[in-house]
Formats: sequence, structure tokens, C-alpha cells
Amino acid sequence: MVSALLLHRVAVIGASGYGGLQTVRLLQSHPRLQVTFLGGHGSVGRHWRELAPFLDPGPDLRVAQPDPDAIAAAADLVVLSLPNGRASTLAPALLERGLRVVDLSADYRFPRLEDWRQVYGGAERADARFCGEAVYGLPEFNRQAIATARLVACPGCFPTTSLLALLPLLQAGLILPEGIIIDAKTGTSGGGREARQHLLLAEAGEAVAPYGVEGHRHTREMEIQAATLGRTRPLRLQFTPHLLPMVRGLLATVYGQLAPPGCSAAQITSHFLDTYRHQPCVEVLPVGVYPSTKWARQTNRALLSVATNPHTGQVIVMAALDNLLKGQAGQAVQCLNIMLELPESTGLPLTPFYP
Amino acid sequence: MVSALLLHRVAVIGASGYGGLQTVRLLQSHPRLQVTFLGGHGSVGRHWRELAPFLDPGPDLRVAQPDPDAIAAAADLVVLSLPNGRASTLAPALLERGLRVVDLSADYRFPRLEDWRQVYGGAERADARFCGEAVYGLPEFNRQAIATARLVACPGCFPTTSLLALLPLLQAGLILPEGIIIDAKTGTSGGGREARQHLLLAEAGEAVAPYGVEGHRHTREMEIQAATLGRTRPLRLQFTPHLLPMVRGLLATVYGQLAPPGCSAAQITSHFLDTYRHQPCVEVLPVGVYPSTKWARQTNRALLSVATNPHTGQVIVMAALDNLLKGQAGQAVQCLNIMLELPESTGLPLTPFYP
Amino acid sequence: MVSALLLHRVAVIGASGYGGLQTVRLLQSHPRLQVTFLGGHGSVGRHWRELAPFLDPGPDLRVAQPDPDAIAAAADLVVLSLPNGRASTLAPALLERGLRVVDLSADYRFPRLEDWRQVYGGAERADARFCGEAVYGLPEFNRQAIATARLVACPGCFPTTSLLALLPLLQAGLILPEGIIIDAKTGTSGGGREARQHLLLAEAGEAVAPYGVEGHRHTREMEIQAATLGRTRPLRLQFTPHLLPMVRGLLATVYGQLAPPGCSAAQITSHFLDTYRHQPCVEVLPVGVYPSTKWARQTNRALLSVATNPHTGQVIVMAALDNLLKGQAGQAVQCLNIMLELPESTGLPLTPFYP
Amino acid sequence: MVSALLLHRVAVIGASGYGGLQTVRLLQSHPRLQVTFLGGHGSVGRHWRELAPFLDPGPDLRVAQPDPDAIAAAADLVVLSLPNGRASTLAPALLERGLRVVDLSADYRFPRLEDWRQVYGGAERADARFCGEAVYGLPEFNRQAIATARLVACPGCFPTTSLLALLPLLQAGLILPEGIIIDAKTGTSGGGREARQHLLLAEAGEAVAPYGVEGHRHTREMEIQAATLGRTRPLRLQFTPHLLPMVRGLLATVYGQLAPPGCSAAQITSHFLDTYRHQPCVEVLPVGVYPSTKWARQTNRALLSVATNPHTGQVIVMAALDNLLKGQAGQAVQCLNIMLELPESTGLPLTPFYP
Repeated sequence: MVSALLLHRVAVIGASGYGGLQTVRLLQSHPRLQVTFLGGHGSVGRHWRELAPFLDPGPDLRVAQPDPDAIAAAADLVVLSLPNGRASTLAPALLERGLRVVDLSADYRFPRLEDWRQVYGGAERADARFCGEAVYGLPEFNRQAIATARLVACPGCFPTTSLLALLPLLQAGLILPEGIIIDAKTGTSGGGREARQHLLLAEAGEAVAPYGVEGHRHTREMEIQAATLGRTRPLRLQFTPHLLPMVRGLLATVYGQLAPPGCSAAQITSHFLDTYRHQPCVEVLPVGVYPSTKWARQTNRALLSVATNPHTGQVIVMAALDNLLKGQAGQAVQCLNIMLELPESTGLPLTPFYP
Repeated sequence: MVSALLLHRVAVIGASGYGGLQTVRLLQSHPRLQVTFLGGHGSVGRHWRELAPFLDPGPDLRVAQPDPDAIAAAADLVVLSLPNGRASTLAPALLERGLRVVDLSADYRFPRLEDWRQVYGGAERADARFCGEAVYGLPEFNRQAIATARLVACPGCFPTTSLLALLPLLQAGLILPEGIIIDAKTGTSGGGREARQHLLLAEAGEAVAPYGVEGHRHTREMEIQAATLGRTRPLRLQFTPHLLPMVRGLLATVYGQLAPPGCSAAQITSHFLDTYRHQPCVEVLPVGVYPSTKWARQTNRALLSVATNPHTGQVIVMAALDNLLKGQAGQAVQCLNIMLELPESTGLPLTPFYP
Repeated sequence: MVSALLLHRVAVIGASGYGGLQTVRLLQSHPRLQVTFLGGHGSVGRHWRELAPFLDPGPDLRVAQPDPDAIAAAADLVVLSLPNGRASTLAPALLERGLRVVDLSADYRFPRLEDWRQVYGGAERADARFCGEAVYGLPEFNRQAIATARLVACPGCFPTTSLLALLPLLQAGLILPEGIIIDAKTGTSGGGREARQHLLLAEAGEAVAPYGVEGHRHTREMEIQAATLGRTRPLRLQFTPHLLPMVRGLLATVYGQLAPPGCSAAQITSHFLDTYRHQPCVEVLPVGVYPSTKWARQTNRALLSVATNPHTGQVIVMAALDNLLKGQAGQAVQCLNIMLELPESTGLPLTPFYP
Repeated sequence: MVSALLLHRVAVIGASGYGGLQTVRLLQSHPRLQVTFLGGHGSVGRHWRELAPFLDPGPDLRVAQPDPDAIAAAADLVVLSLPNGRASTLAPALLERGLRVVDLSADYRFPRLEDWRQVYGGAERADARFCGEAVYGLPEFNRQAIATARLVACPGCFPTTSLLALLPLLQAGLILPEGIIIDAKTGTSGGGREARQHLLLAEAGEAVAPYGVEGHRHTREMEIQAATLGRTRPLRLQFTPHLLPMVRGLLATVYGQLAPPGCSAAQITSHFLDTYRHQPCVEVLPVGVYPSTKWARQTNRALLSVATNPHTGQVIVMAALDNLLKGQAGQAVQCLNIMLELPESTGLPLTPFYP
């Protein structure tokens, strides 16, 4: 029996989308965190059980308007799983009330508001200082800052996958910052739970297609973070996402030019193993074993594999993860664990049920 | 009513795999070609109808041993849909008997036998001269040679897609031959109809994974043909195939460095439109419209779209087709049409049933 | 070359849903029918090509408001592919202008308006006499009435599949009208192209679930037609549809109690073969061969197979078809062919591209 | 930290199939059971990690020949996940050495050997007495016998689903034993991990088809157990399995004639709630909520829902579960828990990660 005193109280805002749903699901089996407030807009007043008959009765809660005072009364930490542009209308009030916030949207992923506005456009925002304060929630490369942060901006599935593949190369100067290509493949749950025609099974089933080939909005975020966390000069990336006929899973195949041309896959793999040795949520595969998204499904683990092409001097890094866990809600819980000085993978599944 | 005199007689050898199956299916609704011999190994003596209860009773034929004399008595042309290494044990005898042969395997795709052996290894072959004589069956770039050929080596789905994307760029000097990357995504039918564990729905369903990342056997074939048909210096490619959870369809996303750096997507699209203007089986999409494999499914049409990244000086060509038609059996029929001076798309579906 | 004089002019209203889309697609390759008017609501003014970049440029048409006079000026026949309740607001005006109408909705499937209202509820309708006049568009059992009809109400995928399985049994008194069960399995395209959450790939993928178990709205229609066309006493059915993770295809497994208990599968199959001998769009499979929806996909053919259970005295009929063709648009074209005294399967694919 | 003294040692024989794989996976996160022996045939000598790179390194074991003495030295309990006919060649020797055995095959599911032989045919067996001793491993209806059993024959996915739906009705006399129909829908993983053509994604994808319609081998097992555990007169069932394009999941839609004709869904649901009140692995849904296999996926929970048709006097029970967990390995672990007097759902996931 876990004493109630040990439980940290968490509010989840935006509980009917996949991000919120997965967060609640994870917290249901988390030994130290407890959902004490469920906020939303469209589903106010409905019982949680109605929204998710497939989850355990779990929190005996109804969805409430995300009123900052009510949230502050009920919770110590908040996970915001709202559409882009929405989190920034709520987060300042929460922070002012002393809550710590983990945001799953793009609102605080750019240190400078003008970069955000260039990509996402939209209305004026008065919270520039919070953008500057927000910590990029990629634990493997930003753990210390996350530990003490008030506001964590969790990267989504594409940047997480791409940065886990790229940063060890950039930090060590193993890859030229110019000409890097990220060819990404995602399941349709990455597009969210709102009904949209192109995400219908009848449309997306039995099909693969690229989208956002020129200037996808995640590109700029990755460029900035790759340069910052990779400690390299500014760089530009080609990022090409593809929509695949599957529910969950994300694979990024990352290509670049080796800086030291003769470097072997074994040498780079060895460097990756060093980099991720103490990271419970990343696994580096042996040379020649390529990751399937299925090996990472419904876990919070990213799988990485390195190959090289000696004829062309290129390095290829393949990275697979579950877009809704390590690429979204699982990463949020990983950040919460760090913020609370709990073991980092507490309550996070790391082993799949295959197949 | 079509007069029987006008019908060309075709033997299909290897009728129980997907290549043979699709060839027979296409010929069933072809106005000028008729299947008059069905050859195979495992299924000798069985009636066609038993192998394919889903096809029209069509040819009232039983599968027979592929005896060259029997084939020569029954047919004028032969489509070989046999495992690699098998076609070359049969083709010489067929050619000697005056038959014209379209081969779907890799056996005659390399002008020089030593290149073939380097990739496929295997037993000694005594038919080097046929390798030299064989014509690479990519109609859009080799029509004249196909028209008069005795032996056509049809490229499979990966080289067809990749070359249709690359050759207009290479021929016009729009892309640097160095550093080209082909990131390909294929449905599982590309792996054939023989039962193999990794192609089970339970394994390949809800998953995406790369394979053959280092030196896939199609890489060398593409390198040789890209240089030859592209009229450029020898080149090396990075080719990364990925297995997707769908039945049919192939998408190649091709990346390279623009030779004239400032070239726009509109300019290159215009060049593609010129190149393929009179090609009934290739369609170039407007800038910003990206191809879905679903738009090409169960058709013999390849769809191409061009994008550029002005920040990185890269060009991206996306090419989609049906791996079993334009990537296999449909291309064979397209070649047969050319060999017989029929309109090139005779009997070939060009419009999908969406969705 | 087909003379333009021979082409019948067809208006398709509701062109952006799957029903309209498939109808246009079929008519594109129909030798005697031509789309001359495209009507819709949401997409007025848009060029057809924008709605369906995957179809041949085909009809150089823009979507127009479905104004009865404009339709009458442009076309001789009309296919209505509109939401339930919508067709009946348009059909009377079309009929009054001398057009012949094939309706894909449920509006005219009930001879008596009160039956319709009981199931579909909704607003008052002033067109009771058209309900009485409308002909149920199941060609295999209603060909003569269709041939001369002004207004044909095409049954959808569930009733078509179920009635093709049941009617031969009912007409011959081989099955008790009491206790019949129809357990149906459908792909998600049956739910239409409008974005709805439960039809998202992320929701419907990797899942099967029943729906509408108690009193699905197709049940009453099937009960009435089974009794009428089956020439039997009134009956009540249990109809249970299930949503499957696939794009196209419908399988109905129909169970009933044999009236003559000792009847064998072979005997009943023989009766089915007699019933459907001259029906080009129905195929009866040999005993022991069970239909896959894949054998019928993208064709206008229904596949039937009969089994019996001697221990329980039950008969089981399995029926598979493509829900968007024989279950929707293909059936409409089949009806048009009959209305115009063309060979019934003109322009309709009957053989699949497997797999 | 769990003391090693508390861990029960389990041997898993047949570790490379899905049954063995899932068993090992479950035991990896089981707090009281530990895999201490991995037995197999094809993969002897290979390290576990090679067979399952996607699982945690977990047991540092190589696959060994299933030698009874070696097993007895290493383990206290054995899970046999072998092809039908294979378990019975090993189980007697294990029992004689004092091990307790849970068998996932059909070998011990029939109390009388002659019933087994009638269904499975095959070689002579000398272990008739073990057939008589074996306990049918359906915990919800056989818990006490399982608790003390030496040999437990776990029912597979079809009988488990069907019996959970039927037994409450039969035991309470709510359904006529005559004319019961089980229409089942299964994902392809139910067919095992061995490569077979009809289970290829290219074949089974985008398709649904019935199989084994007449006398499927699970029918007899269900008939015997339904009568025995349902405490009713002997009965005959119609069982129709269908293969669906998904990896995991099983849905059975069970139809029968209500014995008290006027019984409502609410009344029967209330009886189901009573029956399963203390069963942690069964959940009864409210009237009108129908189960999706997705709500049960990767859990050991079966979901049940009851509907009735007042017009026909029929009852419809829908039952969904994960075929590899509650329908196979999870049920084995549930039985092990009972045999060891552990809480029944120890180490078993009960809540899905949706979607």
C-alpha cells in the first residue's frame, strides 16, 4: 500500500485527445503520481469513464473547465495537452500560482517568440519571458535543466526521434552540419484524435504519402535545437514526413555526410553506446540490427541503429519510437519524474508486447 | 469481336507467384495478347482455376513443366516470372527456338555477368552473351531498344521508381551524381508470395522498419543504369528500403544536391513535364501536390512530384507506383506492347479505384 | 471510336463522397455513359480535378449547385449520391422534368413512407407517391421492374449482400423465415468519406467491434425486402454489423434453420447455381470454398458459398462483395445499364487484381 | 527488492512461437515468477536475445533441448507452448518428476482420449490417464480445480471467448442449448508465428474470409466444455471463425434463443455482473456499449456485452479479448497464479494503451 502522502497531484488539461489520454493512462499505473484534476473544453461535465470506457475506472473525476484557481487547488503539477496556441493562454496563470507545468504543445519550444511566430503565425502573445524561461524537455540532453524547471516544453515525436539520432553525431563532430536529411515515417495517431478526412482509415489505409515536404513546421524547431543542444554552428535541415497506414509508431531515417570520412558503423555505434549508456529510455542496437517501430510500441524507449556507406561517405541513423509515449505523453511523465527526483523511468513501460 | 488471328500467344512461366499472377490477370483483359501456356514447378498438373479461384476461369489451362519445345509450340512470346538465377537456365533455350522473352528476374539486368555475380553470387552461368544482348526494360528511357529486342530484362519496383525520379535530373545535369539518397517504402507484396516469417501480417502489421541498409542488392543495378541511361559519370547511391504495413504500393523519396543551386521546383517540374510529355504511364504532378501510392494502386502509372529546399540546395523527387504493375507485371506487358508495336498502354489500367 | 451520338448523358449529384466518386470513376471507363453534370453542395465551383487528383482529368467539369433545370439541360439520367433525407428533396423535381433517377440513399427504399419514417425519423415528406413508385434496385431479383423504372432506389452494401444470400433460400422454402441471423463485417469506407472520429485509422485500425446490434436501421429494410422478393410471410431478422480494419469489402455470414432438415450443402449450392446461372455479377463458389472479400475487391461481383451443419440443421451462406461497387456505385451503373437496355455488366470490372 | 527466495522457477518450452514469447514477456515483469529454463527445438543453442531483440535482455538463457531431467533441475513449473500432439510426448515425464504443468496446446483439453483423436487424429497416445486428470484451465469457471492441479490444459482464444459468453447463460438456463451460433473474428497472430502463405500480410491484408466453417476442430472442445461447465445437456454448436486483417484481438458474437423469451438485455447483464463480480479478468459492459478488441488489447481482460432482440427472442453476447493474452499466455499465467495461491491477476496487465 502506497501512502497517500507520497503521491504527487497532477492535473491533465486536454484529456480527450491522444496526448491527454495517454498521460492519464500512464499515471493510472504510476506509483507516485496521481491525476487529481481533468480539464478540457468540449467535454466539460462528462465523467472520465464516458470518454474512455476502455480505461480502468481510475480517477473518479469529471472533466472541468481549466480554471487556474481550481487547478491550483487540486494539483501540484500540470500537464497541458492542448492545441498549439492554446497552452500559452493558460500556462502563465498556472505558473503564477506556483504550479509546475509540462506542456506538450509547440507554444514554448522556441526560446525566442519571433521564431515561434514565424512558424506558427497567429495572434500576439504577451508571454515572451516564459518562452525564454521554458526548458526543452528532452531528458537525454537536458536533464539538469528539466530537474529544476518550472515550465518544460516537451518536444513531440518528430523532433525527439530526430534529435536522439543526430545529437551524438553533432556533439562529437562526426557529421557535417550541412545537407542533413531526415526522412520520417509516422503512424496516423500522430495527427491527433480530432476527425480529419485524410486520417480516415479509408483514406490513409493501404497508402503511403509524403506531406509538408517544403518547410514543415517542425523543421525550424529541430534546426534550432540541433544547433543548440548539438553545440554546433547554425544549420538547415531537409525534413520529410510520410504518413503510414498504422496506428502508432515513428521511424526516422537520418542521413548525413561523415565529417571524418573513414569512420565505420562500429565506431559510431560505440560512440552512441557511450552517449546513451546511462539513459534508461534509449537503446542502441548492434550494427546490422535495424529497429522496427514494433519493438518500441507502447513503450517509452527509443531504439537507435547506425549504418555507414563507405562508397559515399554517408552515415545513416535509424531511430524508432512510439509517437504517443516517448514521442509525447511518456516523455512528459519522464520529465515529471525528473522534476520530482524520482527514478527517471518510474511508471513507464520499457518492454513491448510483441507482436 | 476480335479475330483470333490478331491474338499474340504468350507463355507465362512461374504462374503462382505474384508476378505471374498479375501477368495472367492483365492478359485476361488484354485485347491482343492471350495466355496460351502456363508453366511452373511446384504446381505442375494443377488447373489454373485452383491456383486462383478469384480470377475469371480465363485460360482453360493446367500448369505444365516449362519445357522449351512445348513452350515454343504454344507461344510466340514468353514472360518469365521465376526466382533469381532460374530464368537464366531457361531463357537461352527459348531464344534459340525463336521466342521473344521478357524476364522479370534480375538475371539479365546486368550487361556484364561479373557485375551480376558480384551482387547475386551463385553458380556459374554460360550465358554471358545473352547478358550483353539483353535490353533493360524501362520503356520511358529505352523504348527503341525494347521494340526490337529478343530478350528484355524488366527492372523491378525499386529501380523503376528510382530511375523514373532520377534520370530526368541526371540527363539534364540538374543534380550532382554524388551523394544521392533513395529512401524507399514498399508494401509487403514486393517480397513475393512465398511464406516467410517477416512478411506475416502478425509481424509486418502495425510496424515499419528499414532493411538492407548497407549494400542492398538493387543498389548496384541502379547505380549502373543511372549512369548509363542518365548519361553521366559512374556514381554511387545510398538506397534504403523500408517495409510498410500495406499490401501494394511503393514510394521512393529521392534526395540530391542541385547542380545549379538556385533551381526552383517549378523549373524542374517543367523539365519533368517535358521529359514525360508523351509517356502514357508517367504523370508529373503540380508543385506542392505529393503523390500517394493509393493514387497509383492497381494501375500501371507512376506519379512524380518535385520539391526543392532553397536553404540546403537540395532537390527532392517523390515517385509512387504499384509495385506489382508498373513495378513488375504491368511493365512486362508495357514492354510486350512495344515489342509488338501495339499502343504502349494497351490493356493496362491507368486510373485507380479510390479509395 | 465511339460516336458521341451513342453516349447517354449522366448527372452525378454528390460527387465528393465515395458513392459519387466511384460512380464518376466507373463512368470514366464506361463505353456508353458519360458524366455531363457534377452536382454538389460543399464543393460548388471547384474543378473536379481538385477533388480527385488521382482520377483521369476525365470530365472537364466544375461542381455545380444541383439545380433541376440545369441538370435537365445537361443530362438524361441522374445518379443521386446524397445523405439520407436529401435525395427526396431533389428527386421529384428531376422526375417531373423527365429525367430518370437512380438514388443511392435510403429515401426511396421503403414502399411505404411510414416505414421509412419509423426508421429514419426526420422531417415531413410530400413525396409519398414516389416512394410507392420507386423500384428496389437489386437487379438479380428485380430486373424487369428496373428496366422500365423512372426512379430506382439502389440497396446499399448490407442489404445487397444479405439479400443475395437469403433470397434463393426463401424463395425455394429451404429456410425457416424465423430466427435468421446476419452477421456482417464491413470495411470502414462503408461509413463514407466525411470525417468522423470512430472511422479514423488510429481508432478503427487494429480493432474489430460490433455496432448497431439492436435495431440497426438497415434491418427493417431487409425484413421488408426479404419478405417481398423472397415471397414469404413477414419475418424479423437479427442483423449485427461489425466494423473491420480494412478499406473496402463486405462479408455477410447468414445463418438460418433449414426447412427440410436433411438438405446438404451440395444440394443447396446446386440450387444457388440455378438461381444465379445468368447473373453476370454473382458467382456461386464450390462447396468448401469460402469467399474472401479480396476476391471481390474493386469488382462488381458478389461471391456466394453455402455450408450446412448436419448436427444442428442449420444452413450458413457466406456472401462477399465490394461495398463501394456491387454494394453501391457499381450497382447503380448496373441499374443504369438495365434501364438503357445495355448488357448488364457493361463498363463494370468483374475480375480483381489480387492481392 | 524482492527476495530470490520468493521467486517460483518456471520453464517455458516452445519459446520462439507467439505463445512462448508472450509467456516469457509476461514473466519478465511478474514479481513472483521467474523464467529459469527455455526449451525449444529449432532454435537450440541460440541465446534468447537473438530470438527476441525487442524484449529486455531479461533471462540470460540459451534455448535448450527440453530434456525432462534438465527441466526438473531448473524449474518448479512448466509452461508448454508446443504444436498440438507434441505436448503429450513431454508432459508425462515432467509430471513424473514432480513438476506442475500448464499446457497451451489441445493435447489435454479433452477428458477422453477418443474425443481428442476424433478431432485431431494422429498417432497413438499412451497417456489416457493424464487426459482424465488434466484440469481445463478456464479460471472463471474452474478455479478450485486449477488451484490444486498438477496438469492444466489451458483453452485457447476461441473457446475462452465463447465459453465466457455462453456459460453464464447455460448455467442459469437462460438460453436453449440448441441452435447456438458462435461467429468469431480473429487477428492473424492466432495462426501462430510459423510462416504460412494465407497469413502473409499481402494475402490477409485488406480482406476478411471465413474458414473451417464445417466442423472446425475447436467446435467439439467447446461443445463438451459448454455442456460440462454449463451443467446442461449435450449440445451441438455452429462455430464460424473469420480471419481479419489485424495482428491481435478476438471477437466472438454469440447468438442463441432465449429460454425465457421476454428476458431483457438489462436483466441478463445483471446476471452477468453477478457471475463475474469477483473475476478480475472479466468485465461486463453496460447495455448498449459494445466491446472493441482494442479495449482489451495487450491486456488479460475479456470484455462482455449483452443484447437481445425482442422480435426474434434471441440473445446476443459479444465477447472481446486479446487472443495472445487472455486467449493464450495470459491465461497460462493466470492459472500459474492460482496454482501458487498468488492474487489471480499478479503480473497481468488489465488496462490497454489506447489507441
